[in-house]
Amino acid sequence: MTEKDEAVLLQQLAGIVGSTRVLTGPEDTAGYQQDWRGRYQGAALAVVLPATTSEVAAVVKACSALGVAIVPQGGNTGLVGGAVASLDQASILLNLSRMNRIREIDASNNSLVVEAGCILANVREVADQHKRQFPLLLGSVGSCEIGGLVSTNAGGTGVLRYGNMRELVLGLEVVLPDSAVWDGLRALRKDNSGYDLKQLFIGAEGTLGIVTAAVLKLFPKLAVSASAMVALPGVQQAVDLLRFLQEQVGQRIEAFEILSRRQIEIVVKHGHGLSSPMPLDAPFYVLIELADSSPTWDAGAELENVLAEALDRELLSDAVVATDLAKAERMWALRHNISECNKHAGFTVSNDTSVPVSRLPAFILGVTERIERVVAGACVCHAGHIGDGNIHVIAVLSRVMYSTPEQCEAAAAQVNLIVHEASVELGGSISAEHGVGRMHVQRLERFKPPVDLQMMRMVKAVFDPQGVMNPGKILR
Amino acid sequence: MTEKDEAVLLQQLAGIVGSTRVLTGPEDTAGYQQDWRGRYQGAALAVVLPATTSEVAAVVKACSALGVAIVPQGGNTGLVGGAVASLDQASILLNLSRMNRIREIDASNNSLVVEAGCILANVREVADQHKRQFPLLLGSVGSCEIGGLVSTNAGGTGVLRYGNMRELVLGLEVVLPDSAVWDGLRALRKDNSGYDLKQLFIGAEGTLGIVTAAVLKLFPKLAVSASAMVALPGVQQAVDLLRFLQEQVGQRIEAFEILSRRQIEIVVKHGHGLSSPMPLDAPFYVLIELADSSPTWDAGAELENVLAEALDRELLSDAVVATDLAKAERMWALRHNISECNKHAGFTVSNDTSVPVSRLPAFILGVTERIERVVAGACVCHAGHIGDGNIHVIAVLSRVMYSTPEQCEAAAAQVNLIVHEASVELGGSISAEHGVGRMHVQRLERFKPPVDLQMMRMVKAVFDPQGVMNPGKILR
Repeated sequence: MTEKDEAVLLQQLAGIVGSTRVLTGPEDTAGYQQDWRGRYQGAALAVVLPATTSEVAAVVKACSALGVAIVPQGGNTGLVGGAVASLDQASILLNLSRMNRIREIDASNNSLVVEAGCILANVREVADQHKRQFPLLLGSVGSCEIGGLVSTNAGGTGVLRYGNMRELVLGLEVVLPDSAVWDGLRALRKDNSGYDLKQLFIGAEGTLGIVTAAVLKLFPKLAVSASAMVALPGVQQAVDLLRFLQEQVGQRIEAFEILSRRQIEIVVKHGHGLSSPMPLDAPFYVLIELADSSPTWDAGAELENVLAEALDRELLSDAVVATDLAKAERMWALRHNISECNKHAGFTVSNDTSVPVSRLPAFILGVTERIERVVAGACVCHAGHIGDGNIHVIAVLSRVMYSTPEQCEAAAAQVNLIVHEASVELGGSISAEHGVGRMHVQRLERFKPPVDLQMMRMVKAVFDPQGVMNPGKILR
Repeated sequence: MTEKDEAVLLQQLAGIVGSTRVLTGPEDTAGYQQDWRGRYQGAALAVVLPATTSEVAAVVKACSALGVAIVPQGGNTGLVGGAVASLDQASILLNLSRMNRIREIDASNNSLVVEAGCILANVREVADQHKRQFPLLLGSVGSCEIGGLVSTNAGGTGVLRYGNMRELVLGLEVVLPDSAVWDGLRALRKDNSGYDLKQLFIGAEGTLGIVTAAVLKLFPKLAVSASAMVALPGVQQAVDLLRFLQEQVGQRIEAFEILSRRQIEIVVKHGHGLSSPMPLDAPFYVLIELADSSPTWDAGAELENVLAEALDRELLSDAVVATDLAKAERMWALRHNISECNKHAGFTVSNDTSVPVSRLPAFILGVTERIERVVAGACVCHAGHIGDGNIHVIAVLSRVMYSTPEQCEAAAAQVNLIVHEASVELGGSISAEHGVGRMHVQRLERFKPPVDLQMMRMVKAVFDPQGVMNPGKILR
């Protein structure tokens, strides 16, 4: 666009949100223009900070009139570059963090109406104050925002029990590409009056419209919990143990996370003051948490009983139950410090694929063997969500053998190709919970069937014919 | 279309599915051409009975080439005329009951792949044989089919604990309006690789494509259960009691159904050998079932304890816990015989609306008062799913006062208008679980916001530009 058009647009935007809410100087915009890991750079004309839905609608109207794209951003905690402007189209970056009001809480409907800029930790806190819980939980809980969690259909450790973000959303408010505001803030458990339009925007990464508010489902607060660490001879036993636990304690399994011995060894070696509560002589371990809203249920005793029976059935080789909360937290610290510790261990290539749970053993054995054969010196670790079929395969490469960026990139490409081909072969997905963003656009074209791509393009074309909504994400 | 075209089409269809699978004689088609309650008549050129997905695709291709519409039908148990041909367009009725294969069961992935024509009861039986359960449950369990349950996003009594059909579907196979087959039969708990296309077809009532198979979620089998009947001073107490139970026993509430005294009185009066286990001196009653997959959980004792505490807190006025399965079944018979008994009591006008749970008390009091004021001699009963905000408001009219069809229709129109206006005023839906079909098309145009209707029409237009997929349903 011409400099004149650009100046006119910036003036219009300042008129809408206020001049101090339109950032253009490099020092002001730097924190917004790249993702938090510094892997993706954007070149938006400006960073715009609206405070209301009508401001968002006015910004969309002004931009689309000039064919300028709008890139929505929340806490900027994404892992695939979905909230960073593409370089090949004039765009503004619309950060919704100022839209952070809790609009309404309805405890007896178990629902909460929040704006897109609300931080997950705050939403969980508000629910807690009303004797309810909002169960979504992931690493960036202190900075990720509701709009982004909806737009990426966020996962995390609670999916096994509560489902993905999609299952936690009752209604949405969305600013559409034509700047109309869709008020879909319904708080209903059952509504079959026509197409369920909110489903279109959940997981669409802002390519069909901008989520400005959501109605979230709340759940009874948990009253009791207990954790354990369990040693297993293999991945198959992890799947079998989960099924046995589900038969014995049903929906009380709050978390069931697998870690390979190598992964735990890295965490213990590089984590400050972290140690394993049991000897590391088995190839795999799972961390288990049982929790219940019923105060009369003895979580600790039930966990010990069910693990004892599992031992009799040879579903596990050894187990340690945390006898107090501090011990439980030390156990879970082994899981939560993985990314941090792996960084110290070398150059890491991490993946986010899923396969049917029954195929996890074949998947993990296959990719591990292939990576170690093809990528010299690769140390393959595993961590993830057994119940969701979502295991993060992590290749840790020695910084001595892989010293140049070119060597690292080449190795990363090899690892990714092996993992993605294997997951697709087994009926899996190349992106289980992180989304597509900029990172996987070409991969999607390679691995998605043509019919899927065609339908996705039809939806995009009919909702955003001008192509102004977060272009270059999911689809080209 | 011309007689010649019609003859050509019927010949093509016979070539695809076999001549004995194309029914045209009135005596052969009668059972398919009208809904089971006899309220909607169709005039399809033929009833076609395919056995495979490729036959369905070939039928769609042949019909759309001539602009002939395709009306998909399963068990024909719908309540809104969604599976009956419209009268204003040449169409064929495609009944999928012959597509009734269980394609695959994967117990360790807790998933099941079934064809559209599988009857719900059979699917539940197969899951049970593999120590799993498929939790969807509604009155027509013995005849409704998976394709229809997906296409209407079926509800029922299990929604409180397990969600609607939408939450129970992992993947779909769909024949699209252009006769392409979309293979979306993925069995993944997490998949964020692009738009979640299956959501478009769930609840679309066959207007965007024909569901031919589905991947369903399975759950651990229940080991223990207990039931009780509880007397309540009002609807507010029913909501409060549900929240208290959720805090005490969490996700173990298998069913929580409300019935008004008048409704129970009708069932007791007209039901053969049915009786109430407690005096009918309270305005409302709830039937409660607690169930758990954990064999060690004492359902009966827990239910008695939690109800005793609820009594102390004045959340209920009286309660009876069923001491054995036979007594529990007699309790639940009061709920399951409502439709049958109401028929004997008079001309009934039933509704299927939902509101936020917190607004149920205002909704029920308001509509009851208005109906009794406006519709002379109406006896208003209530039955439904408190936890879903989905109460069926039922007006029973004396056949003496309302003896002519005209009188009945006029009264029905009055009742429906009162109920629908009240539900929309309170942020509710005019169709909670039955869908739109032919019945609610005009109502939807009146009660849905223009932005919603516009988006629905955009989706319909881009997927079915020719308008051959179940025309006249949901949208005109």
